[in-house]
Amino acid sequence: MNNYNFFDRKSLISFSTNVFKYFKVPEKDAVLASQILDYSDIRGIDSHGVARLHSYFDMLKLGRINPKPIIKIIREKKSIATVDGDNGLGLVVGPKAHQIAMNKAKNYGSGFISVSNTNHFGSAGYYSERSLKNDQISWSMTNSTKLVAPIRGKERMLGTNPIAIAFPGYKEPPIVIDLATSAAAYGKIEIANRKNTKIPKGWSINKSGDNTTNPMDMIEDGSLLPIGSFEEIGGHKGYCLASMVDILCCVLSKANWGPFAPPFALQQEIPKTKVGKGIGHFFGAMEIDGFIDVEEFKKEIDQWIKVFRNTKPINTNKKVLIPGDPERSSMKFRLIKGIPLINPVIKDLYNISEKTGIEPPAGIEPAT
Amino acid sequence: MNNYNFFDRKSLISFSTNVFKYFKVPEKDAVLASQILDYSDIRGIDSHGVARLHSYFDMLKLGRINPKPIIKIIREKKSIATVDGDNGLGLVVGPKAHQIAMNKAKNYGSGFISVSNTNHFGSAGYYSERSLKNDQISWSMTNSTKLVAPIRGKERMLGTNPIAIAFPGYKEPPIVIDLATSAAAYGKIEIANRKNTKIPKGWSINKSGDNTTNPMDMIEDGSLLPIGSFEEIGGHKGYCLASMVDILCCVLSKANWGPFAPPFALQQEIPKTKVGKGIGHFFGAMEIDGFIDVEEFKKEIDQWIKVFRNTKPINTNKKVLIPGDPERSSMKFRLIKGIPLINPVIKDLYNISEKTGIEPPAGIEPAT
Repeated sequence: MNNYNFFDRKSLISFSTNVFKYFKVPEKDAVLASQILDYSDIRGIDSHGVARLHSYFDMLKLGRINPKPIIKIIREKKSIATVDGDNGLGLVVGPKAHQIAMNKAKNYGSGFISVSNTNHFGSAGYYSERSLKNDQISWSMTNSTKLVAPIRGKERMLGTNPIAIAFPGYKEPPIVIDLATSAAAYGKIEIANRKNTKIPKGWSINKSGDNTTNPMDMIEDGSLLPIGSFEEIGGHKGYCLASMVDILCCVLSKANWGPFAPPFALQQEIPKTKVGKGIGHFFGAMEIDGFIDVEEFKKEIDQWIKVFRNTKPINTNKKVLIPGDPERSSMKFRLIKGIPLINPVIKDLYNISEKTGIEPPAGIEPAT
Repeated sequence: MNNYNFFDRKSLISFSTNVFKYFKVPEKDAVLASQILDYSDIRGIDSHGVARLHSYFDMLKLGRINPKPIIKIIREKKSIATVDGDNGLGLVVGPKAHQIAMNKAKNYGSGFISVSNTNHFGSAGYYSERSLKNDQISWSMTNSTKLVAPIRGKERMLGTNPIAIAFPGYKEPPIVIDLATSAAAYGKIEIANRKNTKIPKGWSINKSGDNTTNPMDMIEDGSLLPIGSFEEIGGHKGYCLASMVDILCCVLSKANWGPFAPPFALQQEIPKTKVGKGIGHFFGAMEIDGFIDVEEFKKEIDQWIKVFRNTKPINTNKKVLIPGDPERSSMKFRLIKGIPLINPVIKDLYNISEKTGIEPPAGIEPAT
């Protein structure tokens, strides 16, 4: 059931690019959007890569996303601004709004941008990691469709609202922090459901608010839990972090906050009430050089990495990791072997190919 | 064993002020420092209030803290800067560095400050809440003495490194987020130990790295766990957040990061290696007005609060809370009844009074 085949990443990028272009997304935007999907695919962040292409396809096909957005600053005060994404692809609005944050940081030392009227922007870590080439540190956040219950609540009120930030090393690789503020990603629930396995206690509750280890209980109107899972062990902290992301991305920019976030996938219900435009992102960039000499900073990050890698491990076969290590280890493998896609994803791509006439990615075979 | 008496808060503020002044802290600084302790005392954040006065007393008495610091910007680029706290009280350095962030935000829209050579700054939420009167949103973070093990590790490598941020309501009270990035505060372990009760699984590990429900296992060379507690339910995310705080506060400012943070209490060991100066803080302020009309923002926050309070509760007697609610409910009570202090704290204050000749706070009685 979870068979997979490997695909050439360049061929996947080119397939995605052609799909975006099919809907009149300008060439340059289509290429960048596809590269952001590839960022996730090579790092093993499978839920944010080409596996999502069918959702983008659906939204573009239904006219729910504007392929040629005119992205505008609608309010501004020197280093900070609010951007309206004109209902574009998040993969197009995100990079442009983040670029504005980086430009502002270049001019003022820091730059912070809240974005409304946008859509799913891929992996938050992409934006944070991209700042490193400018010797900047960037925060990246977004809200998303409701899936998470606040502690003490039994209904979906918040998205999995990620927070990302990255710090450059000198000889060591960068520290890349990118975390959903839910205990587990929705994708993990779906995988457990497909495999017919139980999920750990602490990931979700059923619609009555009881803890459950049955993935179907969550899928059928249950909720994910925030990081910390239970009030007794700090679940309210995860709820606080998800709320912070929600307010910075949406209340500041006048996007749809909390339970009003519009859905990204077809099967999700569209909320009856609108409190703003689209979903929201929040980007913040800071020039390292304004705080400390850049080389000195990078060398100290190398020291930090070495010290933390040498933490006494509980199990000598499982050393302490540095944020970004799991993704780097996937990347090492996938840059050589290609991108493994499971059959449901292959089917999706094949379906897009049939509907658009775009040649399927290299190596693609009909799912068995 | 946990008997307590109530004390008049003004009398506690005046006692703390006199203690700081006894060590030649200037009057204005002494008053502000005492008000920051009071901020925690009235909100029920007992671990950060006057209960800490004996530690400040010890540090000042031993000459480990500079009572008259000259706080300087040592590097700057328009909206961002690094501040050297000259080894002052964190309760003095914190407000001054945060004020610099707020001033920069006034001038540039945002202001971000990393601070080295400082000490324990009280409750992180104080700084975030204080920005609201300027119609600004402020982040506030600090590192602290090592207590937390990274996921997969079995030794203390990080502090409980809090993150705070606050958002103003219009008719509703503000949303005040203030969370340690550990699953539980060290103070809670101490309380369980005094009461001889067990602690929940997920708060800490013993020195071998095994989960433990015995508070003494943590106290004796065990470690706290980061938010999320276990890798399976997202404990690595708490480790990532604590690392983010550590790097922003310390690597950017050249303070002592990770396990090298100097201790705040006498009984804690001083690390053999120094990698910087003192501990570090990080403050970031943003003008709401640069993103959205202030009144419009506050009114939308009111809506956010109403919607989240009305989340379907699991238990109708335990409604969903808004960040800041628990502290507000303590405050309501304590502003009328006074500050309840447990006997060990009363003993500490009495001990300071004996050693300095400063009149003890009103209502104080020797602990029984």
